[in-house]
Amino acid sequence: MNGAEALLQTLVDSGVEVCFANPGTSEMQLVSAIGKTDAMRPVLCLFEGVVSGAADGYARMADKPAATLLHLGSGFSNSLANMHNARRAGSPIVNIVGDHATYHLQFDAPLTSDLPGIARWGSHWTEIAHSPEELSAGGARAVQASMAGNGQIATLLAPADHAWNEAAEAAPALPPKTPLTVPQSRIDRAAEAISSGGKTCLLLGGRALREESLATLGAIAEAHDVTLMSSTFPTRLQRGAGRVAVQRLPYFAEQAAEALAPFDRLILLGAPAPVSFFAYPEKESWLTPDSCELITLAESSEDVAGAAADLAGALGADKAPTQVQTRQRHEITDESLNALTVGQIISNEMPAQTIVSDEGATCGLAIYLCTEQAEPHDWMTLTGGAIGQGLPVALGAALACPDRKVVALEADGSAMYTIQALWSMARENTDVTVVLLNNRSYAILNIELARVGAGEPNAKTLSMLDLSNPDMSYQQIAEGLGVSATQATTAAEFESQFRDAMGTRGPRLIEAIVTG
Amino acid sequence: MNGAEALLQTLVDSGVEVCFANPGTSEMQLVSAIGKTDAMRPVLCLFEGVVSGAADGYARMADKPAATLLHLGSGFSNSLANMHNARRAGSPIVNIVGDHATYHLQFDAPLTSDLPGIARWGSHWTEIAHSPEELSAGGARAVQASMAGNGQIATLLAPADHAWNEAAEAAPALPPKTPLTVPQSRIDRAAEAISSGGKTCLLLGGRALREESLATLGAIAEAHDVTLMSSTFPTRLQRGAGRVAVQRLPYFAEQAAEALAPFDRLILLGAPAPVSFFAYPEKESWLTPDSCELITLAESSEDVAGAAADLAGALGADKAPTQVQTRQRHEITDESLNALTVGQIISNEMPAQTIVSDEGATCGLAIYLCTEQAEPHDWMTLTGGAIGQGLPVALGAALACPDRKVVALEADGSAMYTIQALWSMARENTDVTVVLLNNRSYAILNIELARVGAGEPNAKTLSMLDLSNPDMSYQQIAEGLGVSATQATTAAEFESQFRDAMGTRGPRLIEAIVTG
Repeated sequence: MNGAEALLQTLVDSGVEVCFANPGTSEMQLVSAIGKTDAMRPVLCLFEGVVSGAADGYARMADKPAATLLHLGSGFSNSLANMHNARRAGSPIVNIVGDHATYHLQFDAPLTSDLPGIARWGSHWTEIAHSPEELSAGGARAVQASMAGNGQIATLLAPADHAWNEAAEAAPALPPKTPLTVPQSRIDRAAEAISSGGKTCLLLGGRALREESLATLGAIAEAHDVTLMSSTFPTRLQRGAGRVAVQRLPYFAEQAAEALAPFDRLILLGAPAPVSFFAYPEKESWLTPDSCELITLAESSEDVAGAAADLAGALGADKAPTQVQTRQRHEITDESLNALTVGQIISNEMPAQTIVSDEGATCGLAIYLCTEQAEPHDWMTLTGGAIGQGLPVALGAALACPDRKVVALEADGSAMYTIQALWSMARENTDVTVVLLNNRSYAILNIELARVGAGEPNAKTLSMLDLSNPDMSYQQIAEGLGVSATQATTAAEFESQFRDAMGTRGPRLIEAIVTG
Repeated sequence: MNGAEALLQTLVDSGVEVCFANPGTSEMQLVSAIGKTDAMRPVLCLFEGVVSGAADGYARMADKPAATLLHLGSGFSNSLANMHNARRAGSPIVNIVGDHATYHLQFDAPLTSDLPGIARWGSHWTEIAHSPEELSAGGARAVQASMAGNGQIATLLAPADHAWNEAAEAAPALPPKTPLTVPQSRIDRAAEAISSGGKTCLLLGGRALREESLATLGAIAEAHDVTLMSSTFPTRLQRGAGRVAVQRLPYFAEQAAEALAPFDRLILLGAPAPVSFFAYPEKESWLTPDSCELITLAESSEDVAGAAADLAGALGADKAPTQVQTRQRHEITDESLNALTVGQIISNEMPAQTIVSDEGATCGLAIYLCTEQAEPHDWMTLTGGAIGQGLPVALGAALACPDRKVVALEADGSAMYTIQALWSMARENTDVTVVLLNNRSYAILNIELARVGAGEPNAKTLSMLDLSNPDMSYQQIAEGLGVSATQATTAAEFESQFRDAMGTRGPRLIEAIVTG
């Protein structure tokens, strides 16, 4: 076997089942190796930002890594924005990046760049394979590294000659890393603080937002004066009917500060301390009130679920929570199509166990609020703020969970970053319904423009935030990429189209022309 | 005036007229500043790869930089692949990258990343502004740096607070840098070598491929046994009727080696020594024959045109060349649509001074060869090998030269990387005709797969290089992005559509379904 085949064998033995790929010449042996096995599903993506975003979505749902296959420094560059989002999400990803043959690098051929430099920039863990055998052994280490701290970006650089030369054998898989246990002293400190009275907010991120941990935390909240709040952009929040509900920390700094103002202490469980997303003139970046005690129970890289259970144990909160979300349908009274009616209809129609990928930007919050009492579902958000994540994440989630419906809430501006994802959705016949929220504007930037104190904008300034002239038709774009698409301009049209999409398997796009 | 306004003033005073932009919250003051002046044309692009590619195309035609406006580390990341191509092209670009306010960085908000690190990775010159005044002064230095060595990537990081705080004044423009003069000793050595007999190849790149230098070099070639050859992927080659013709170094290594085999010496003028684009098992990376003397006359960063003139002077080759390309129309005898008939029709129909952006991949060479005797035109290629350059380069070239027709030859696989460029073409009403060469495959990779010795591919392997399933309709995609589009499946259809496009101003896409 050659180095590429040995690496593939090791990845398969390490439990990697899917490879999101956009290969080039230097990866042809790896392509060929994938072609020879049934144990790895290759998913061709038409741009590397789709590759990395899809690997993120897959990891969020599968709790294990997919592999990516990327071409040299430029291919890796194209993947970086969604790699950033995956890093913020805490998603495990194993990148295999082909490089020129080792002896070819010295010639500075046109596609040569400092691949190790940019790989290290974009990854938690980077290794350059130095032989065909080490390519395979590096694959085992990469999978192991990707699972450290609940999820990391692990990047293995694969020089082409080590892929095509003979390897003596495939390296065995390595034992998985488990997240560090939170020391008892931190559990005790948090428990004492909660027991001491006063108002406590448990700010939750990472794995703390899964159903089981939320039930544990819900029991604590019922027994003590504790409010459960999720971070603004959770990786994966399990919510809806039958689950313990949480508040969500608002996006805008002043609203977040207001939400945090009542509390005597803030206990962080898998979430960082809340800070403003951007800085604004004369506004605070740090959002915890001065009078509020700040206690870190667990970092997102630690055993968050274990810490939640240990905290409940320390507090004697061992009963199941009684206050869980109930199912409630909305009555649609508004005929116009806007974020609210879209949200109400989605809430009514989406089936149990739907996975929502929310890159709805200004429309996202209303839809989120409307779906509180929907059937139980998973909600995934734009964790790192680099737009262009939503469609790829939906693609990856659909491949991780082929039996579940995926709904992608996608704003028009963000959609255009990685619109290529639609083609892979069609090619893989994924069960994704994209709700394309078209307000023909980078609407969030109109809000931000006012907030940064840039004065009264003139027409020329506003034109730089405007997505009309020409209007885009996402219906046509989707059809061009092989995805069936319709357009809705009223609540009734959207309801009919969305209901139909929920009742039918396969990729679909509904362009919702929204007015606000 | 605030720092952003001061910077804008300095950029305008430094001769920057166009800003390709995809801004976010941290750039709102710069957006507002652009809105307040008529001296800067903002061009909104829907993805940062379009921004950097368009700035490259603009620079190739204008011989001066455009500015870009990019959002934090993720925005800059997205621009990197085409920044790589621009670096290989030797294009001057001035990047203005907004960053979080200086005091906000410490909080590691979600979009925070090591922006200085990646800016340095992707740029020749990087500076972080440390005050509102230094933001403006840094702009002057960035423009100056961008023009060093005929063209560099200069990146200025603009913290948001320095943009919104008051600046005492706008810094003045700095004198432009001129490329270094080639020392007489190198001129003499090259002249002596040519005079000493034997067969000489002058390998040309960068500015050596402009009309004037080619005329100078043509005179040398007529007086001595000298062959003029362009590098494989020239930045901008002026060719067609009335111009001195050059051979083009082939892409595949064994063909390149064969083309170079006859020569006793190779003189490099603005081109690097020829090496294989990729490595292949058992094939050479270094392409100059062992028996061939290798002489560097001028690096691409030096005064290449001056070196050409000095060489002609040293050789006494001071007459105008007599052998220039003649105009010749093709007779179209094949009814099927393929690279050859597309090339013949384009050659017949494109008007004088057309600018061609060639990212035609496997179809590109035939079209290039067919257009040898077309009306005089400029030919621009994929200089760095990172696909997704062609459409943005065409956009930028059209803005630099609003009175000239631009033809973008675009392969289907490459097109999907930066398809967003079509929208900006429509929005700016650029005179670009996109010829979308749709063979429903990454065809080049089918060739490369065989060349890397990966064995006989099976169906699963081939599927990873295939762009059917589903077939894309670029006609629909283009219409969805606001560009009028048609589809051609025969030579006659293509001829009629292309002729019509050449006779009408404005953006247009012709999807050519090609069979080979």
